[in-house]
Amino acid sequence: MIVPRLIERKRDGGTLSPDEWRELVLAYAAGDVPDYQIAALLMAIFFRGMERSETEALTDAMLGSGARLDLASLGIPRVDKHSTGGVGDKTSLILAPLVAALGVAVPMMSGRGLGHTGGTLDKLESIPGFRTDLSLDRARIQIERIGCALIGQTGEIAPADKKMYALRDATGTVEAIPLISASIMSKKLAEGLSALVLDIKRGSGAFLPELDRELELAKTMISLGEDRGCPVVALVTAMDRPLGDACGDALEVRESIDFLNGSPPADLAEVTYALGAEMLLLAGVARSHDDAYAMMRAAIADGRAAAKFREIIAAQGGDPSVVDDPSRLPIAPIITEYRAARDGIIQEIRPRRIGHGIVELGGGRRTMEDTVDPAVGFVITKRPGDAVRAGGVIATIHARDAAGAATGRTVLDEAITIGDARVTPLPLVSHRVTARGVETLA
Amino acid sequence: MIVPRLIERKRDGGTLSPDEWRELVLAYAAGDVPDYQIAALLMAIFFRGMERSETEALTDAMLGSGARLDLASLGIPRVDKHSTGGVGDKTSLILAPLVAALGVAVPMMSGRGLGHTGGTLDKLESIPGFRTDLSLDRARIQIERIGCALIGQTGEIAPADKKMYALRDATGTVEAIPLISASIMSKKLAEGLSALVLDIKRGSGAFLPELDRELELAKTMISLGEDRGCPVVALVTAMDRPLGDACGDALEVRESIDFLNGSPPADLAEVTYALGAEMLLLAGVARSHDDAYAMMRAAIADGRAAAKFREIIAAQGGDPSVVDDPSRLPIAPIITEYRAARDGIIQEIRPRRIGHGIVELGGGRRTMEDTVDPAVGFVITKRPGDAVRAGGVIATIHARDAAGAATGRTVLDEAITIGDARVTPLPLVSHRVTARGVETLA
Repeated sequence: MIVPRLIERKRDGGTLSPDEWRELVLAYAAGDVPDYQIAALLMAIFFRGMERSETEALTDAMLGSGARLDLASLGIPRVDKHSTGGVGDKTSLILAPLVAALGVAVPMMSGRGLGHTGGTLDKLESIPGFRTDLSLDRARIQIERIGCALIGQTGEIAPADKKMYALRDATGTVEAIPLISASIMSKKLAEGLSALVLDIKRGSGAFLPELDRELELAKTMISLGEDRGCPVVALVTAMDRPLGDACGDALEVRESIDFLNGSPPADLAEVTYALGAEMLLLAGVARSHDDAYAMMRAAIADGRAAAKFREIIAAQGGDPSVVDDPSRLPIAPIITEYRAARDGIIQEIRPRRIGHGIVELGGGRRTMEDTVDPAVGFVITKRPGDAVRAGGVIATIHARDAAGAATGRTVLDEAITIGDARVTPLPLVSHRVTARGVETLA
Repeated sequence: MIVPRLIERKRDGGTLSPDEWRELVLAYAAGDVPDYQIAALLMAIFFRGMERSETEALTDAMLGSGARLDLASLGIPRVDKHSTGGVGDKTSLILAPLVAALGVAVPMMSGRGLGHTGGTLDKLESIPGFRTDLSLDRARIQIERIGCALIGQTGEIAPADKKMYALRDATGTVEAIPLISASIMSKKLAEGLSALVLDIKRGSGAFLPELDRELELAKTMISLGEDRGCPVVALVTAMDRPLGDACGDALEVRESIDFLNGSPPADLAEVTYALGAEMLLLAGVARSHDDAYAMMRAAIADGRAAAKFREIIAAQGGDPSVVDDPSRLPIAPIITEYRAARDGIIQEIRPRRIGHGIVELGGGRRTMEDTVDPAVGFVITKRPGDAVRAGGVIATIHARDAAGAATGRTVLDEAITIGDARVTPLPLVSHRVTARGVETLA
C-alpha cells in the first residue's frame, strides 16, 4: 500500500477497493499512516465523493477498528435516535427515558457540542453528579437493568472514526456525505441496535442546509444500516429556527424535564413525538402511529417517563431530584429579559447565530479542550411568524455577568429580525425517508 | 487566523488574502500550523486553483521565509536554467560550465531525483569527491571566483517551500500549476538572478503531459518572475522519449563530459544549445541567436567549457580529472547489450518506464531517504522513428549484477516498442514563451 498513489487515485476520480480501505483505516488507527496523508485523502473525497462500495468499506473498517455493545441476549428491541445536530435540540433527553419506559432498550451514544450545535453529553452533565464516561461493560449492565444508558463515544467504540472525526474537524472536511454517513453509522452499528431513527435537520441551522443533500445523506445512512441488519427510518425536521424555547445546556435539561412532567412547547412536542413514534414502530411495540402517540402520552401522563429519567440519572451518579425540582440545576447569576424594539412579525430567529451566541456566553466550545458553563443561554418564547408589540418580551438571556448579558443582547439583536412581512417557516416534520423511498409529510 | 476556516474558504472556491497567505506560510514554517491542515489546503488548491494574487503571495511568503544569494555586487549578469524534470535530461550539467565560460554567472540550485525523473545533485555526486551541500556563503564566494556553483536547496533558502514540497510529495498534491510555480520561483528568485530560462518538458515523460497545462505553467512562472524584476523565457521541449543516449547518474555525467569535449548526440545538442542561447541572450552577452550558437560552439571547440567544468569540480571537492578520463566515474559491474527482437521501426521509448527502470536497478529513489547507485542505467542509442534490424543493438544495460541485468532487459522490453508504422516524435523544441506570448517554433 503506497498511500500517495491511493490519494492520487481518489483525487483523479478513481475508486479504492474494500481491501485498500480496510488496510488504510487500520494502519491509520494504529498510527502507521500520518494525519497529513489522511487529511489530503479526505479533501479529495470532499471533491470526488465515494462509490457506495467505498462508503460501505469505510464504515465496516471503522466499525471493525473497535468493540461493539452485545445486547442480543437482552431479549427486547434496541432502538436509538440520532440527530445531525441543531440548536435547542433536546429530543434525545426526552426520548431516551420516554421510549425506555415503554419497554424498548435505548443504548444511546451521544457527542459533545462543537461549533454552533449543542451536545447531549454536555447537557446531561449539567445535572449535578451525572457521569457519561461509562465503559461499554457498565453501559451494557445498566441497559440490562433499566433499559437505557446515555454515554459518550468511548475509546473502545470505532477508534478509527474518533481519530478521523477530529481530523475532519481541523481540516475543513466535515461536510462530505459519505464521510458523515460512515462516521455516524460506524458508531451506531457498534451500539448493537435492532433499529435506528435518524433526525435529519434541514434549514440554515443544519449541517447541510440544502434539502437534496439532506435526503442523499438520509438515503446513504439508511442503506448502510439496512444492509447490515439494522432497519433505519429518517425524518427531515426543521432547523431554520431553534427547536423549543430553551437554548443552553441546563436550560434545555429543564425544558426536557418540563416535557416529561407534561408541559412541552408545541413545536418540541411535535418533533419529539414524531421521532418517538418511529422508534416504537421500528421496535415493534406500537402497531400504528396513533397507537405510538397514545402510548407516549400515557407514559408522560402517568409519570412513567419521568420515573425512568430519575432511574437513569441515579444509575449514572446524578441527582435524580432535579426531575422534581429543576431549580437544583445550575442557574445563571444574571437573568434578564429581551424585548421587541418595535411592533411587527418575527421574520427570523437564526439558529447559527444563537448557537454561536451560546459559545460567546461561555456555554459552548471553540476547541474540544474548552470547558462549558452549563447555566448560560437563551429562552426564546416567540417563533418566526409570531406577532410582537414593541416592549413585549421575546426571550430571556441567562448570563454569567453584566458583560455576558450585554453580549447576549447583541446576539439576539443579530439573530432575531422583526418586520412586517408574513412568514412561512419550514414545516416541523417535512419528510419521512425509508428504504422504500421518500414520503413528503408537509 | 482560524486555519479550518481558511481551508473551507479555499475549498468552496474563495480566495485568501496576501496577508493570510503570509501569516499561514510563516506559521507553517515555524511549526505552528500542523502538516495535516496544510495537506488539506493543498488538496483543495489542487481542485480549486489559486488566483494570481494568491500565487504571488505564496511565492513571496516562501521566498521571504529564508535567505537570498546577494550577487548584485558581482557586476556580471546572473542567469540560471530550470527544467520541470525528465529522463536523460543532463542539460544543466553542460550549460552551467558552458555559459559560465562565456562570462555569465550561473548560480544553479538543483534537486535530487524522485519518482521517474533524475536529479542534477545525484548526477554531480557520482563524480568522486563532489560536494553539493555548500552553504550560501560558500556558494557566493565560489561564484565570485569562478562564476558558477552547483548546489542543493540548503535549509537557508525558502525553508517553507522545502517543507511544503516534501508534504506535497507525500500527499498526492504535486501536480498543481500554482503550487509548482510558487515552489520553483520562490527558490529561483532566492538565487539573486538577473534572468531565468525555463525548460518546460512536454510529452508522456513530463510532469504535466498536456501542452495547454504546460503553457499555463510557463506563463504563470514568467509573470511571477517578470513582476519581481527577473525576466524569464521558457522553451517547451520534448519528453515523449529520453533526451540523449544516457539515462542514469554517472552515465549522464559521462555523456555531458563527451558533450563538453565536442561529441554530443544530436538531440541533446539541439535542446542544450537552444536553452543556452536563451541564457546568453537574456544575459546580454549575445546579440542574436546565431551569435549565441557561435559563442557556445567556440567555447566547446577551444576547451574553455571543459576547463570551466574542471574548475567547478575542483572547487566543490571533486576529482577534475574525470573530464579528461571519464572512466574514473563509477562503472557498473555488468554491461550488456540489448538487441532488437525483430526488424521494424522504433515506435516508442517510454521515458517513465525508463525512469522507473533506473529506480528498479538501484539508481533512483523511492523515498527521500534512499541512497542511489550512480553506476547503473541505460545507454539507448536509437530513437523513435529509427529503423532497426533483428539482432541489432538498441541499448546497453548497466547493472549491479545478473539479476539487475535481467530486470533491465524487462524494463527495455516494456519501454521500447518496435513496429511497422512511421513515427513522428514531438519536435525537440516546439514553443518559446515570453512575457509577450507564445511563439510556435516547430
